[in-house]
Parts: sequence; structure tokens; C-alpha cells
Amino acid sequence: MTDILICHIERYITLDEESKNLIIQSFSTFNLLKKELILTEGDLCHYTYFVAEGCLRLYYVDNKGSEQTIQFALENWWMTDIEAFNHHRSASFSIQAVERTLLLGIRKNDLDLLVKEIPDLEKYFRNVYERAYSASLLRIKLLRLPKDEFYALFCTKYPEFIQRIPQKLLASFLGFTPEYLSELRKRNH
Amino acid sequence: MTDILICHIERYITLDEESKNLIIQSFSTFNLLKKELILTEGDLCHYTYFVAEGCLRLYYVDNKGSEQTIQFALENWWMTDIEAFNHHRSASFSIQAVERTLLLGIRKNDLDLLVKEIPDLEKYFRNVYERAYSASLLRIKLLRLPKDEFYALFCTKYPEFIQRIPQKLLASFLGFTPEYLSELRKRNH
Repeated sequence: MTDILICHIERYITLDEESKNLIIQSFSTFNLLKKELILTEGDLCHYTYFVAEGCLRLYYVDNKGSEQTIQFALENWWMTDIEAFNHHRSASFSIQAVERTLLLGIRKNDLDLLVKEIPDLEKYFRNVYERAYSASLLRIKLLRLPKDEFYALFCTKYPEFIQRIPQKLLASFLGFTPEYLSELRKRNH
Repeated sequence: MTDILICHIERYITLDEESKNLIIQSFSTFNLLKKELILTEGDLCHYTYFVAEGCLRLYYVDNKGSEQTIQFALENWWMTDIEAFNHHRSASFSIQAVERTLLLGIRKNDLDLLVKEIPDLEKYFRNVYERAYSASLLRIKLLRLPKDEFYALFCTKYPEFIQRIPQKLLASFLGFTPEYLSELRKRNH
């Protein structure tokens, strides 16, 4: 499972055997069942997670009690509550497995040590955050489109999500009612 | 003006004199008047900008012809159309000075060279993008709140924006009509 992470890191930087071993030793593995929570809003957020297989979602519960999905992470994406993780604060979001999911997780202190040992990892993580930032900008832009255009663009940009994410969660992420999403899907077939 | 950038970088990493000089030589300065554009949607995006003084906004024009503001950058923030900048594509956003603004800009090739010369800069930029990503996550969360709650939270979190940003732009950023924003402001006084 750590091969997938090493392989992803090597897209950006070169690693020698010693570095690879150090990375592998710094991560713990987590095997989540569908719908299992790995972080609960209000708890401390000790880990940042790399998705080796499966899919996570980041969400919060709004003041009407509905779950609002902010982000999904498929294979090769990282997910955590970044503010809570970096500043040892309690989490503003929960993280749940959308399907059976295999994760690699690393604690803040271990990550800091690892990056000190392998400074090239800063380059890797700069790329990871740059992509995450860029995706969230696009997200903000899409959120302002008329709903049908938003959906059409989203389908073009992220076809793999449309296939894998349950309709109810996708609707929450897109800010639609499940009924409206189902109507749009029919219209587009 | 480059002192402000050096000072900001030194919050995250240590720089020797040679590195400082190299950084200073790699940047161009831009002095923008209020409302001046530094990037226009559709053009190539050659630079990424550091705000030394003033304020920028990132926006696009929607299909009804209205400007939609996605993000502001005050002093010590970076701004560019990150996708266009990294992949030499034409810009999906425009960038405009909200007030008289002093910028430091660096071209993609020069930035790549600079980071190669001073690898510690990867750590600096990892932090820059981590913060930007984190701010945009909060933004997505806030956008889903009822409008009055969104405004109240925004005022608490970013009081300096409320003071400096013209009402019309702030309304566009918050997704309000200027009339609704003006009503909220009266209610909160």
C-alpha cells in the first residue's frame, strides 16, 4: 500500500532507498469500512491522510443538522482538517469513508521530522497544496454558476466522481437537493 | 519594497545575504493605480504577484456580464491565476488593484530557477499554498451559511477587509446585492 504513496511522491521528487524506508516507517495504515469515520468534528485532528484506495469526504453539520460535504478525496489525494491538524485545534470538519478505503496516515510531529530528514518533501507538499488550492478556487467559481451549468461542467471535469459517489452525497457536495440532481441526471441522458 | 517580501519569507525560513540578493534580483516591481488591471481574463498569465502594499482582487465575468470576485489579497498575500501561471494557459480570471497597490512579480521560469537555487523556498511556498488552501476551504464553508451569519463571521475573521474593501466589491465577494449588504451593515451598527 505504501508503494502507491512512494509512487505518487516520485512524480515530483527523486527518493533514494533510505528515504523511501523512512517514509514507509513514518506512516500508519488505516482500513476503513464504508461510512466509517476517521475524524469527528470537535475532536483533535492528529493525522493527515493519503488515500491509497477508496474515497473520503470532508463535511460538517450545519445548524439545521444537515451534513454539508465540502470536499472528496479519491486515490492519490490527501485529506485532513488542515487548520486543526497544523494548530492542534479541534476539528471543524468530519472525515468519512465513502466506500471501503485504505489510508496512510501520518502524525503532525512525524511529518515535521520526516520533512526535516527529507527536505525535498517540501516540494512534494508544495505541489499537493498548490493543486488543492487550485481545485478549491475552481470549486468556488463553479458554485456561483447556475446549477445546471455547474453540474455539466463538473461532469466534464471530474467524470470519475459522478460514477463513484452516491447520489445523496454528490447532491450535498453540489448544493442540490437529491431530487434536483436526479432530475438533472435524467435530463442529461 | 523587496524588504517586505524578504521579511515575509524569513517568517518561515532563514536566508543568507546571497539568497536575499538573488530573490531581490528575480522580482520586478509593479505600481498599480486604483482599478488598474494586472491580468485580464483570456490573456497569458506570466507572473505570480506578492502584495507589498495595497490590495488585489481576483474575479471573472459571469455569463450575465457581472464581475464575480473570488478572492482578495492584502499585504503579504500572493495572487495569480495559479492554473494559468503553472501551465502557460490563458487566464480564467482577471486581477485588479482595489486601491493603489505595490506588487512584486516573478515569472514562472525565474521562480523555477530561484527555487532550484534556494530549495528552502519550497518550504515557504508550501506554507503559502497551505494557508491559501485553508482560507478557501473556510470560504466554501462560509458560502453555505445563511447570508447574515456569513457576514457576521466574515466581519469577525477579517475585520481589515470590511474597512478597506469598497462596498460594491465586498457585496460581489460575499454573493450579496449591494443593497442587501448595506441593509446588513445598518442592522449591525
